[in-house]
Amino acid sequence: MTDIGRKVWAIAEGYIPAGGLSGDPALKSHETACLLNPNDRDATVRITVFFSDREPCGPYVVKVPKQRTLHLRFNELKDPAPVPRDTDYASVIESDVPIVVQHTRLDSRDPAVAVLSTIAYAAE
Amino acid sequence: MTDIGRKVWAIAEGYIPAGGLSGDPALKSHETACLLNPNDRDATVRITVFFSDREPCGPYVVKVPKQRTLHLRFNELKDPAPVPRDTDYASVIESDVPIVVQHTRLDSRDPAVAVLSTIAYAAE
Amino acid sequence: MTDIGRKVWAIAEGYIPAGGLSGDPALKSHETACLLNPNDRDATVRITVFFSDREPCGPYVVKVPKQRTLHLRFNELKDPAPVPRDTDYASVIESDVPIVVQHTRLDSRDPAVAVLSTIAYAAE
Amino acid sequence: MTDIGRKVWAIAEGYIPAGGLSGDPALKSHETACLLNPNDRDATVRITVFFSDREPCGPYVVKVPKQRTLHLRFNELKDPAPVPRDTDYASVIESDVPIVVQHTRLDSRDPAVAVLSTIAYAAE
Repeated sequence: MTDIGRKVWAIAEGYIPAGGLSGDPALKSHETACLLNPNDRDATVRITVFFSDREPCGPYVVKVPKQRTLHLRFNELKDPAPVPRDTDYASVIESDVPIVVQHTRLDSRDPAVAVLSTIAYAAE
Repeated sequence: MTDIGRKVWAIAEGYIPAGGLSGDPALKSHETACLLNPNDRDATVRITVFFSDREPCGPYVVKVPKQRTLHLRFNELKDPAPVPRDTDYASVIESDVPIVVQHTRLDSRDPAVAVLSTIAYAAE
Repeated sequence: MTDIGRKVWAIAEGYIPAGGLSGDPALKSHETACLLNPNDRDATVRITVFFSDREPCGPYVVKVPKQRTLHLRFNELKDPAPVPRDTDYASVIESDVPIVVQHTRLDSRDPAVAVLSTIAYAAE
Repeated sequence: MTDIGRKVWAIAEGYIPAGGLSGDPALKSHETACLLNPNDRDATVRITVFFSDREPCGPYVVKVPKQRTLHLRFNELKDPAPVPRDTDYASVIESDVPIVVQHTRLDSRDPAVAVLSTIAYAAE
């Protein structure tokens, strides 16, 4: 089987609410980049975060082993710096091996949980 | 009319909540791969499920007859093994006939139902 | 400007809940294909609906004038037959002029409204 | 790195609810086009809004500086005219530099907040 995926992806939407009413960690507000590496080589992934009013931050570097998925919460990124809350951002995701990227958010600021998801933009 | 669809698809996001408050089966938390075969030949579809910390599981094999749609709940997959609950996963979907794949989740853990949907990634 | 869009689209997900608690027509459960014709010629659009267990139904024929959008509710299709409620379906959308198609659902079965949306699959 | 993105995008879905029960501005109903310019030149973006029953309105012109993102609320567009509430619309987004576009809506008409998001259609 030939490789599945692309090496460069972009997510134009990004926003981590500062709060969230739920006490359940699984229901805490979070923003996720779901990374799938279905191929036969380990992937090194570099994420750059873009803002509306300041210089980009990154790269955040993560590994996605061959034939594994990593559902990466932007909330948990720490190096080189945490992603600020209540702030518009966007991201570019570059991998040395083709991967597939999907963007999901769970928002529990309101008493009712809301979720969204979309395939990311696969650059040429 | 030429065939509509692709033979290889990927869904990087996957998560089946263990619970759900609703007593209505239609409102039970579920994760669905909607498969459409609008073409003139029956399709045999092989699904491989990927995890963050263990070997992939599969293939799960389903049939989508010509000119039919199958809204496949990952919850209901049993062979070779059920998809674990409360566990991050992802999937690759391979068909011998072009099909179209869309990913939908209904989450009823919270008293309010939340839904998401996205077109899957169509591999080259 | 060259034409924007494609002539063949597919939506693999489709489901119109039979009920809905809201008394507000704008909040009644509905499933929509948003059709945009940004080009300079009127479009004639033919929609075929596919099911899991019976022959496809269609074509439903609608017009999208040049430089107009039509947010078409599947609930309101009547000719050749209404789309059944509480039934899985999918659709193929063919236009004689390039258009853009997005799929949206508002689900108000639960006391809380839930919404989903995705770009449709653009066939080659 | 070569440029990431496309110069022409379309969003077939658009609808700004007139109301919204939340008193929190972040939870006020809104419709957003998230624009990401990860490239090395400032982008000038022209947005045209299409309706079902009247002539298109635009262009709305916005700037997205190099290496910045702009999460543009359609609610806040004023020139040449505000986008009407409770009205179906769609949009075409043209940039002189490649960008990435994602569409998001937060709907707070109902006591529970609902959200949707999708990558926009990337024209050829």
